[in-house]
Amino acid sequence: MSEIKKRSEIIDSEIKRLMPIEEPKQLYEAARYLLDAGGKRLRPVILMLSADVVGGDSMAVLPASVSVELVHNFSLMHDDIMDNDKTRRGVRTAHTKWDVPLAILAGDAVFSKSFEILAHSNGKGPDAERVVRCIEMLANSCIEICKGQYMDMSFSKLGEVSESEYFKMIDKKTGALFATCAAIGGLLGGGSEEDVSALWNYGVLLGRAFQIYDDVLDLTTPTEVLGKDRGSDLIEGKKTIVAIHAMSKGLSLPLPRDATEKDVDVVIDELHKMGSINYANNKARTFADEAKSKLDGFSDSDSKDLLLKIVDYTITRKY
Amino acid sequence: MSEIKKRSEIIDSEIKRLMPIEEPKQLYEAARYLLDAGGKRLRPVILMLSADVVGGDSMAVLPASVSVELVHNFSLMHDDIMDNDKTRRGVRTAHTKWDVPLAILAGDAVFSKSFEILAHSNGKGPDAERVVRCIEMLANSCIEICKGQYMDMSFSKLGEVSESEYFKMIDKKTGALFATCAAIGGLLGGGSEEDVSALWNYGVLLGRAFQIYDDVLDLTTPTEVLGKDRGSDLIEGKKTIVAIHAMSKGLSLPLPRDATEKDVDVVIDELHKMGSINYANNKARTFADEAKSKLDGFSDSDSKDLLLKIVDYTITRKY
Repeated sequence: MSEIKKRSEIIDSEIKRLMPIEEPKQLYEAARYLLDAGGKRLRPVILMLSADVVGGDSMAVLPASVSVELVHNFSLMHDDIMDNDKTRRGVRTAHTKWDVPLAILAGDAVFSKSFEILAHSNGKGPDAERVVRCIEMLANSCIEICKGQYMDMSFSKLGEVSESEYFKMIDKKTGALFATCAAIGGLLGGGSEEDVSALWNYGVLLGRAFQIYDDVLDLTTPTEVLGKDRGSDLIEGKKTIVAIHAMSKGLSLPLPRDATEKDVDVVIDELHKMGSINYANNKARTFADEAKSKLDGFSDSDSKDLLLKIVDYTITRKY
Repeated sequence: MSEIKKRSEIIDSEIKRLMPIEEPKQLYEAARYLLDAGGKRLRPVILMLSADVVGGDSMAVLPASVSVELVHNFSLMHDDIMDNDKTRRGVRTAHTKWDVPLAILAGDAVFSKSFEILAHSNGKGPDAERVVRCIEMLANSCIEICKGQYMDMSFSKLGEVSESEYFKMIDKKTGALFATCAAIGGLLGGGSEEDVSALWNYGVLLGRAFQIYDDVLDLTTPTEVLGKDRGSDLIEGKKTIVAIHAMSKGLSLPLPRDATEKDVDVVIDELHKMGSINYANNKARTFADEAKSKLDGFSDSDSKDLLLKIVDYTITRKY
């Protein structure tokens, strides 16, 4: 993964360059706060590699890749307010460190900045038409993220949710942005419609594998590695694929608000025994394999190899 | 104003066409809620007239005009959460009717939709480069709005604010979007750089006049006409130009949280007597005249006439 790491460091400096701390300082500090707290930068790296894979120049799409990372961070910032989550990436969430108004506003600023950067970056000359398509795609994926978050929140209040409803939700909440990243890379890299469509499908399936595995990690990764409370999904009543499987086998969820770490451990043991965690892992693997197959049409290259490795990483990572 | 009214009705139907109530229904209902509650549609009308005035086709920029109205509404929706305002346009604000999470999310959806519409509308062919510029301009004005809202909120916590700080704040919070509307109209209407720049300046100055007069209306318009509590700025400690003038003459503000309507009336009487309201009205008139002068370079037309009339309306309206 050192190749991925190298690229994510380039993205980190580009974020600092494109969104420096300006006046009013506190607003920008809050806007940069989650971005500076880390993150794997998977989405921007996928965008860069996708540009490469169609024969484009990954460095030329660097601003666009910052733009998708900003969208991702904006959505986390607002989701954390809505879900009232206290920690993320090992630090306090913005609305608990400052307050809800500043966290809303900082999220809005990050969101706005994302579109400004994308429009500014490559919007000159003959490429303008492709940039407009990318902006439309990114805006549309933001709408999908909103719909996915709405579904996720309302599922928490429902007794039962079907697996197909769950897939619909994660395709919006997670898949749309992964797909958009790969497709924007393909578009700005000068790929054909066929290339762009293959990359899009790669992204959707990768997003599914990613989200399913994310749901598993919430249960299996220690809090200090995860950067947020382990098992919080069980208490919040999130309808993850693990929860849906276990509930269909008769397990009663969610756990009460005052459940202790030990209560959580007991239920997680149960989830292992019932095969629910295994079931989710298998699903993640299936979608991961499907994601890889979408790249069959591209000729072999280091970048293609990395896009394939990212899929494996997605379902084997520790956090 | 019947010409303005006619155009605002066209915009209303275009909003319904471009943002229909889809699934998930509650999210879309919340997203459309403030838009459907009314509003003067001044910003989109200015965009359409600006396209006309440079010789373009106002109907062709209809989607772009919806896009700026959505940005305006998104910012009101989030501002109302931050300021914890209870009513707007005579109806309960979204976060009091539903809850904060849904109001944040609905605002985000409106914001996303705005960029999707602008990118989708005119992004084909030779115009794409102009569309990219418009998107960059709109995204930048969103950042300015965030900065302006931040300044407005922090001014409320400060004892004293200078008039020049106040102008900096309203240029961001209000002026940037008015300027962007006029400039986008000019750009998409095919205007020259000189045209676009004149329209931009018209918008900035109109925005100043608008915001100053808005601050006056908060004090002088009955609650039932205003659609929100009269004098709320005095209680929230907003540093309006009226408050800044009165405080420099020794008036003590803000009013306590539990101030009655009568307490508010007494202070408003005082503001009249001190000349603070008159001072604000004169400032609004000065900026209004300057705004009009920016249109001197355009040849006479019905649309230019309407852009001039909008300036007069801005500083004589009842709400």
